[in-house]
Amino acid sequence: MNLDPQWIVGFVDGEGCFFVGINRQPTMRVGFQVLPEFVVVQHVRDVQLLHALKAKFGCGSVVQNHGDRWAYRARGQANLMNKILPFFEKHKLKSRKRQEFESFRRVILMIEDKKHLTLEGLEEIRTIVGQMRPLVDKVYH
Amino acid sequence: MNLDPQWIVGFVDGEGCFFVGINRQPTMRVGFQVLPEFVVVQHVRDVQLLHALKAKFGCGSVVQNHGDRWAYRARGQANLMNKILPFFEKHKLKSRKRQEFESFRRVILMIEDKKHLTLEGLEEIRTIVGQMRPLVDKVYH
Repeated sequence: MNLDPQWIVGFVDGEGCFFVGINRQPTMRVGFQVLPEFVVVQHVRDVQLLHALKAKFGCGSVVQNHGDRWAYRARGQANLMNKILPFFEKHKLKSRKRQEFESFRRVILMIEDKKHLTLEGLEEIRTIVGQMRPLVDKVYH
Repeated sequence: MNLDPQWIVGFVDGEGCFFVGINRQPTMRVGFQVLPEFVVVQHVRDVQLLHALKAKFGCGSVVQNHGDRWAYRARGQANLMNKILPFFEKHKLKSRKRQEFESFRRVILMIEDKKHLTLEGLEEIRTIVGQMRPLVDKVYH
């Protein structure tokens, strides 16, 4: 199944999420690890769409989320920086999720500059993440 | 906001629903009214997308669903027959919602032939609707 970029944008406007996790990680100098991820969740009956997204983006994985919900999940700085960001920079989201993406993008670019490894950078990331609209209800319920 | 057809298909694959209501209606000869509708629900923050869908399809209305959820809703035989059906016949859905649409389309075509006004036709519609996957969880929760 070959997905049209505009179809992907419409689908992600409906079903996609841009997350930034900030997890305690004592082995890191600043004490926290910043973990951005792009996620699309679907009922198992449409798991083939998640595989088609994975093929189209050329990164990420399709995993069981919980119960009959599956997720396409892209993580890792190189994947996000070189595959996910350029796609949504070129093909703009139309919903308010575009603002989520912009915040997500800012964090990825800061990580690219290693700013997440400084306390100052980490604080800035926390502020950005705090302003991102909570979309958890869309993903996990 | 001008919506690309493929964006619409992707968005509807994620967020759209094709319903057929069968409601008791004593004033009708067969005792029931068949009420198909095409619905897309969004959080109020993206209500402008619903208005853009309304403009694109040239029919329907944008109404408050409940709480902060709003809905674009297209009803009425002429609208469904002449505007909604041709769009999704031309631009195929990619998710399993395509099967919902096919059932929806069969019912609309039966109504066009006035088959819903006969007991036989009504029974056939009931069977089709019974086989449509319940998507209520997507719309009202």
